[in-house]
Amino acid sequence: MTNPMLHRQRFGLALLFGLAMPLLAQASEPLPSWNDSPAKKHIIEFVEAVTDQSGKDFVKPAERIAVFDNDGTLWSEQPAYFELLFAFDEVKRTAAQHPEWKTTQPFKAVIENDHKALAAAGMDGILKIFAATHTGMTTEAFDDYAKTWLTQARHPKTGKPYTEMIFQPMLEMLDYLRSQDFKTYIVSGGDTGFMRAFAEKVYGIPPEQVIGTTFVTAFEYKDGKASIVRTAKLAHNDDGPGKPVSIDSVIGRRPILAFGNSDGDLQMLQWTAAGPGKRFMGLVHHTDAKREWAYDRQSDIGRLDKALDEANSRGWTVVDMASDWRRIYPFDPPVTEQVK
Amino acid sequence: MTNPMLHRQRFGLALLFGLAMPLLAQASEPLPSWNDSPAKKHIIEFVEAVTDQSGKDFVKPAERIAVFDNDGTLWSEQPAYFELLFAFDEVKRTAAQHPEWKTTQPFKAVIENDHKALAAAGMDGILKIFAATHTGMTTEAFDDYAKTWLTQARHPKTGKPYTEMIFQPMLEMLDYLRSQDFKTYIVSGGDTGFMRAFAEKVYGIPPEQVIGTTFVTAFEYKDGKASIVRTAKLAHNDDGPGKPVSIDSVIGRRPILAFGNSDGDLQMLQWTAAGPGKRFMGLVHHTDAKREWAYDRQSDIGRLDKALDEANSRGWTVVDMASDWRRIYPFDPPVTEQVK
Repeated sequence: MTNPMLHRQRFGLALLFGLAMPLLAQASEPLPSWNDSPAKKHIIEFVEAVTDQSGKDFVKPAERIAVFDNDGTLWSEQPAYFELLFAFDEVKRTAAQHPEWKTTQPFKAVIENDHKALAAAGMDGILKIFAATHTGMTTEAFDDYAKTWLTQARHPKTGKPYTEMIFQPMLEMLDYLRSQDFKTYIVSGGDTGFMRAFAEKVYGIPPEQVIGTTFVTAFEYKDGKASIVRTAKLAHNDDGPGKPVSIDSVIGRRPILAFGNSDGDLQMLQWTAAGPGKRFMGLVHHTDAKREWAYDRQSDIGRLDKALDEANSRGWTVVDMASDWRRIYPFDPPVTEQVK
Repeated sequence: MTNPMLHRQRFGLALLFGLAMPLLAQASEPLPSWNDSPAKKHIIEFVEAVTDQSGKDFVKPAERIAVFDNDGTLWSEQPAYFELLFAFDEVKRTAAQHPEWKTTQPFKAVIENDHKALAAAGMDGILKIFAATHTGMTTEAFDDYAKTWLTQARHPKTGKPYTEMIFQPMLEMLDYLRSQDFKTYIVSGGDTGFMRAFAEKVYGIPPEQVIGTTFVTAFEYKDGKASIVRTAKLAHNDDGPGKPVSIDSVIGRRPILAFGNSDGDLQMLQWTAAGPGKRFMGLVHHTDAKREWAYDRQSDIGRLDKALDEANSRGWTVVDMASDWRRIYPFDPPVTEQVK
């Protein structure tokens, strides 16, 4: 009575139900690097609510705009913003073409690793360094410099390329949102061109969804050759109130989800929160001195003070890196129990 | 021997092949409002070349960026830019709140329909009218004003809403490109907010793909209420060299297709043409005084002079509205033979 065809069919069903189903289940289980704590629950509840076509909180796909700060939210920002470290390295790389830098601040300080003189040069000094390393070249040349540095440079603490010091739980969140027809944007203080040099490869965020600080550029055309040249004049400072301004200017829709990690993100969160319907506002709180860094209210970089108070008082989601994330970087081993 | 089931099946097949197939064929025949002239052939050849995965000109979907001017390219622009007519109407609508306008130029000229005084006020006058009608309000309020006007206002010549004076052949081109995974953008001299008020509904182009002239905006936050306020300071003039600049700033990729109709589009076309690989540069030439308007080298509005010379010398596609388009507006009846 044995029918080999029937067996084959049964085996086929076994394959379908016994093997394929767990794979599907795995694929539909979002945020595996997040512990099962309230932060993860808030994210999933929000996404399920706005994507449920029969629910009162449904948002149509075209309006599912999610904005993320970059420094400290999608990747680390210690011991200094990575883009500043790029700028310092660029000063050193091009120093031979600028013999005057040997005796001119703030360049002398950078070349000599003189932290005290650099601190004394202050924000004016930083702006001079940015002008010297980020402008006076075509946008294509700048993209090349940024890409070369991102490939070659290593972080002083981890020894890893900067593009590996990205947060695995946030990568999973970006993927999860996109799988639910969200459009994910970066809205960050970094130079737009610098972030575009890696955002597509590293985060899956295409250049047209990267919004940042910009310099005035000029179109140049000569003998059929066209270029866009970066000038030293600041066009837009994408920090604080500059964030909702650039969101409105570039996207033209109010986000329904915003994620940041510092007071520079407060206005973007307020702008998102002030819209109608269900909204998600999140903050990454750097609480993990062992696996990453721990800092907030007194920090020079990524100060989280007013935004933390507002998040706490308004019930926004504050992610505690130490207890909410099983893994920080993609190169970290996953931790199964909660880290204290 | 008659089997009714068989008949039913045959009828089913006839339905499938006899009725469904022509529908499919129709759906796959792009650009029905274009005559079978070289312009149509150039567009289709270009699209087929860059979407042919096995061909040397293949461009991956993410890089299929197409940019279109709006005034004179996607909709008409005579007897004046429609947005200027909006501004004039807004001056009249709000005149009661500004009694001083009765005696102040250029507002007096607008209220009294005094074309001579308006012409005498020149570009300075126009800027004052734009400041009074486009700024000093939230972006949401401006969007409301624009939408109300677009619904109520009628064109002086056709009596139609301005949003119906769009070019049917260009709508078909936008649809055709999107069906081939192009991302279609507006890059135009109009105010970004004004164009966003209708672009999604009328052209299927979402707000984040509308790039135009912008005013500096400011974030305001009070008692949990957030708004973006338009100030009278010009941020970006999206005309001429401003077009490649905004394309680079907002999109961050070089388009592979650009379409314009005037000298204000020349730099956008040059920027597009100067990239590597296969490219498409197109100009709408307004040659149809009967169905639309005829103007080019001497026109105050939409002057097409240098760009026409460059298009002719470099073999760009120049669309002759009179002979290349079977239909101008969606409300026009299609013309089967070529119009002379």
